[in-house]
Amino acid sequence: MARDPAESDFTLDPQLARDTIPVGDLPLCRVLLMNDANYPWLILVPRRAGVSEIVDLGDDAQVQLTAEIAQTSRILKDITRCDKLNVAAIGNVVSQLHVHVVARFRSDAAWPKPVWGAVPAKAYDGAARTALLTSLRQDLAVQ
Amino acid sequence: MARDPAESDFTLDPQLARDTIPVGDLPLCRVLLMNDANYPWLILVPRRAGVSEIVDLGDDAQVQLTAEIAQTSRILKDITRCDKLNVAAIGNVVSQLHVHVVARFRSDAAWPKPVWGAVPAKAYDGAARTALLTSLRQDLAVQ
Repeated sequence: MARDPAESDFTLDPQLARDTIPVGDLPLCRVLLMNDANYPWLILVPRRAGVSEIVDLGDDAQVQLTAEIAQTSRILKDITRCDKLNVAAIGNVVSQLHVHVVARFRSDAAWPKPVWGAVPAKAYDGAARTALLTSLRQDLAVQ
Repeated sequence: MARDPAESDFTLDPQLARDTIPVGDLPLCRVLLMNDANYPWLILVPRRAGVSEIVDLGDDAQVQLTAEIAQTSRILKDITRCDKLNVAAIGNVVSQLHVHVVARFRSDAAWPKPVWGAVPAKAYDGAARTALLTSLRQDLAVQ
């Protein structure tokens, strides 16, 4: 069994903080909404210091991460009625472990390409942002 | 608990078959090597019929998928000494659920961009392919 890194020293990467709006905290992950209205796009960040790969997490935390990816995937799919989910841990630019959960539509700006680097981000307007955040927080039971 | 789709009707998607070389079967997934020498690039395909999203798998299969992603990630990292792992389930083009596990180097052809669509695939030469397949099969204990 791999040991689990500490939560106490966790701080969110500044670039992730800049690009996103906080949704709330699940038991393991901070859930963030990318401020990009092109696609409903969540980012899950395990609150563990110094972790850049999924395999850097302990075994129990890996199972918990899987459960939280599944939970957010289902909720995002239910809210958006998307055609496809894209789930990815890449981290070539921001090394802090973060998992993208993106709702994709055959009509979206980048389809069928992956979203990273495809088109410039388009910030949400206030009403759309509030509506999506409210739905997400309600379904995830977070504040 | 979600029910688990059947293994019996599983057949590998023809495009995945065309683009890859079989490495072997883990308990859940068929492991494939992308025939692209730009990056050591594995694809894990759960042998379950009609599945396109991770959340379409039953809960036990999701945990098993996580374990097999971790196992292949560690082995790929050990063999290649890569700088970063990229792990992703996208599937906008090939809908059969498949998980990419890619060894990335700061010196590779696409860094720091994701690999999908970045540069044309470059087929392995025979000796490099044999060496990598031999290492992978030995470390995964598959044939």
